[in-house]
Amino acid sequence: MRGKFLSFEGGEGAGKSTQIQLLGENLRSRGFEVVLTREPGGTELGEDLRKIIKYADYGREISQETEALLFAAARAQLVSEVIVPALERGAYVLSDRFVDSSVAYQGAGRVLGMTEIAKLNRFATGGLVPDLTFWIDLPVEVGFARARSRHPELEKKDRMESQELRFYERVREAYVKLAAQNPERIVRIDGEKSIEEIAAQIVFCLNLS
Amino acid sequence: MRGKFLSFEGGEGAGKSTQIQLLGENLRSRGFEVVLTREPGGTELGEDLRKIIKYADYGREISQETEALLFAAARAQLVSEVIVPALERGAYVLSDRFVDSSVAYQGAGRVLGMTEIAKLNRFATGGLVPDLTFWIDLPVEVGFARARSRHPELEKKDRMESQELRFYERVREAYVKLAAQNPERIVRIDGEKSIEEIAAQIVFCLNLS
Repeated sequence: MRGKFLSFEGGEGAGKSTQIQLLGENLRSRGFEVVLTREPGGTELGEDLRKIIKYADYGREISQETEALLFAAARAQLVSEVIVPALERGAYVLSDRFVDSSVAYQGAGRVLGMTEIAKLNRFATGGLVPDLTFWIDLPVEVGFARARSRHPELEKKDRMESQELRFYERVREAYVKLAAQNPERIVRIDGEKSIEEIAAQIVFCLNLS
Repeated sequence: MRGKFLSFEGGEGAGKSTQIQLLGENLRSRGFEVVLTREPGGTELGEDLRKIIKYADYGREISQETEALLFAAARAQLVSEVIVPALERGAYVLSDRFVDSSVAYQGAGRVLGMTEIAKLNRFATGGLVPDLTFWIDLPVEVGFARARSRHPELEKKDRMESQELRFYERVREAYVKLAAQNPERIVRIDGEKSIEEIAAQIVFCLNLS
């Protein structure tokens, strides 16, 4: 039996990793194999690219096209090396971000074009799409403040985090659009609910209990 | 005045680097600024990716899609960081390989599709195309033997070099096709001619003497 591929999306500080953790434990306690992946990264090659994308200091800016291509490269490797084999073993794959993040962040946030980035990623993934995507939606200001208070040390190092509010607004609008275009796949979750409520909603969607 | 962007293409051992060297010296002696780039690489980020592509040992294969995306990422950075600024200064840019190499090696050689790889690279380059491309054409067996005798130490380390003859035949067929599709841009040069004859033909094409 083929496994299930679930991705978690949303802005900074939405609580994705907490929910992935909780769902992973829940699924494991039910006897399922669970594979957690994060983007960019999740493979040795991907982790190297993650460092280049997030922390590299080359004295020059990484171009936006370069960045989008590096994300896509990390993802291509993750799909072929980790996700597809895990699904073939029947595992649950819980991915912290997937293609939707690129479409939202690079496509809309950095204005490279949502369609363009979607095409690039179809090449990278060979057309693999999550069975379900949990989009934990937070008002931009709330998520931004949460991310800041959690990771003050990232403020200077992390190029991704150092973008301004307007950028995050474009990102959220992109998620709204993606959810409207993919109602059967993307589940919007109110990120202002409690951790327990969100976890329960996710379990409910998976028909587990 | 905008500079000139010249790329050099061809199989292994065709003599690209020798010709780039000679043309570079020639142009410099005429007072032109000359910028030499190589692919993948040519920027600090690109050189890091070059190492990953060519020598990384992750215990797992780099997927073909990953490899094509890494080449495209290195190229995107090269275009924005080096090539475009140099052309804006009026320099000659001599590039050891460019998009045609990806189309030939990944698209045809690794059977990812020439059109698909061309599209990917239009994204990476923002549509930048060389003013002229010198394709130094050699019978596959000759180039293969030349490359082997020059770089015996690469035999084990370099994934690119460890491909078999059939691969190089598909690559050469792709160059034939590209040259037929772009007769105004791609100049085919007989790689079995002497170094001096080839250099003279290149200079002639550039209307320099």
